[in-house]
Amino acid sequence: MSIRIGIMGYGNLGRGVECAVAQNPDMELKAVFTRRNPEELQIWSRTARVVSADKLADWKDELDVLILCGGSATDLPKQTPECAKYFNVIDSFDTHARIPEHFADVDAEAKKSGKVAIISVGWDPGLFSLNRMYANAILPEGKDYTFWGRGVSQGHSDAVRRIPGVKDARQYTIPVESALEAVRAGEDPELTTRDKHTRECFVVLEEGADPAKVEEEITSMPNYFADYDTTVHFITEEEMQRDHSRLPHGGFVLRSGVTGREKENRHLIEYTLKLDSNPEFTSSVLVAYARAAYKMSREGLSGCKTVFDVAPAYLSPKSGEELRASLL
Amino acid sequence: MSIRIGIMGYGNLGRGVECAVAQNPDMELKAVFTRRNPEELQIWSRTARVVSADKLADWKDELDVLILCGGSATDLPKQTPECAKYFNVIDSFDTHARIPEHFADVDAEAKKSGKVAIISVGWDPGLFSLNRMYANAILPEGKDYTFWGRGVSQGHSDAVRRIPGVKDARQYTIPVESALEAVRAGEDPELTTRDKHTRECFVVLEEGADPAKVEEEITSMPNYFADYDTTVHFITEEEMQRDHSRLPHGGFVLRSGVTGREKENRHLIEYTLKLDSNPEFTSSVLVAYARAAYKMSREGLSGCKTVFDVAPAYLSPKSGEELRASLL
Repeated sequence: MSIRIGIMGYGNLGRGVECAVAQNPDMELKAVFTRRNPEELQIWSRTARVVSADKLADWKDELDVLILCGGSATDLPKQTPECAKYFNVIDSFDTHARIPEHFADVDAEAKKSGKVAIISVGWDPGLFSLNRMYANAILPEGKDYTFWGRGVSQGHSDAVRRIPGVKDARQYTIPVESALEAVRAGEDPELTTRDKHTRECFVVLEEGADPAKVEEEITSMPNYFADYDTTVHFITEEEMQRDHSRLPHGGFVLRSGVTGREKENRHLIEYTLKLDSNPEFTSSVLVAYARAAYKMSREGLSGCKTVFDVAPAYLSPKSGEELRASLL
Repeated sequence: MSIRIGIMGYGNLGRGVECAVAQNPDMELKAVFTRRNPEELQIWSRTARVVSADKLADWKDELDVLILCGGSATDLPKQTPECAKYFNVIDSFDTHARIPEHFADVDAEAKKSGKVAIISVGWDPGLFSLNRMYANAILPEGKDYTFWGRGVSQGHSDAVRRIPGVKDARQYTIPVESALEAVRAGEDPELTTRDKHTRECFVVLEEGADPAKVEEEITSMPNYFADYDTTVHFITEEEMQRDHSRLPHGGFVLRSGVTGREKENRHLIEYTLKLDSNPEFTSSVLVAYARAAYKMSREGLSGCKTVFDVAPAYLSPKSGEELRASLL
């Protein structure tokens, strides 16, 4: 029998989950829940139902795992604890500073209902966190580095779009190659986020807007751009459409550490992601952890978990025997 | 109270574990067990005891985890099941084809004694296996690649040393950069182990040996070298000592996969290790998993496990709260 999946929210992430479920033969998408009028929502799946979010509780015996695809600012802090009353749930809550609070809220509900909830799943937080953790446990004396990019930052793109005279904009965060090489060379440099990244903006102007003025407004914007090496390119709407419609992203997690009687041996652990589609890759991680939530729930576990608490084997459709024979 | 560690076997790996334990403040090395005469074994630790392997069972209440540092060919198949009768144990059994059998033997004993045994811990098998598994679960449609090196292969070095006229030898396995780049570029190449690696030998000759003959014997050796692009360098004993006394190693695990409605988005997951000392890094992984075995045992778990079965948080000295706040 397939693992019965529900999706809450049909934005980039929800559509990515829909695709990812279709790539996993042990799963079946049963329903997409929306706050919009379900009549007006067209989904890609031919078999799943589109259901009003109001009817969620009616589905409590119809789904094995509900994957929450809303945003971290306002959706997930409410939705995840609420949905954990009825379902095993997965979310991608990514406001790092508020994770402890979110964990506590979700844990309380999931313990009461006896469901499994896995929060902050994706690549950062998520796979990057895992790699930081494994590397720290293995090399207790060392330094951590995370670089992001090359990829589109939605927050920075939005900030540029708010400037008067800007019709559309896309901002790429780019790791500084020389900083990355210094880490790889074992130089243990001290690096701020600013030392590690540059920013590149592609901007479509409104008719009659002054490019010099817009460029000045971007490069002087506090927090977002002022302290970074920022490049601005003005392009046409057609170029934006043709060259910048994807949402690529990625990054690097490194740990450089020492071992030995005299700390004379140096080791480098590096984890790299290069992603054509940030939302689709994040969705693929969510779906693997949905399988884990299902398996853990069937073993009688409950409460809130993060990627740190989930034994790797739970993510795989293979049995322990198969994993040991094929992947160990 | 510290986690009380024992080491069985004091070769490169055992000495590495001794160093790694010293880097982990929550652990204490209590004893090194040896099959040699304990009187004749000098260890680096000032506090641990050197004990005859015959006396192992007497220590059953004195250790939390015993780390087995013997070889996979003959030591571990006997030692790990035997020691699991008395201790939580960790080994680095790395004969991939015999893992299922070893698992069954160890599991039977560990279940009987109620101990936790974690086998095949290190980087391959171990961290590389983990990365293959995570990447497969996340990108079900894709291709896996493992490259080894640049590093010293002990088996190949030994094979060269057995050639008449060879006094000492060191063999480096080297990944083929163009093959690695083809994988990174998303070309999904079909690659055999031979396509992915070249071999470089550094050889000290016996007085009067013929270099041309030795080189011919190396490059034509079946299985080991005949089908590889192999380079042979003749060096002096001093150069061997000066430039080749370390045991560096490393490698790359990559998975390239696709997502999306039309499979139009490509993703690359890459995990890289660059290690100055293969045995010391392996030891550091063993020690982190010793912590996991200790924690799992205290939770009442028992039986044989692999890296796939161990939730990441068990490896860390930090609490769940600390991990969520600092590394997620």
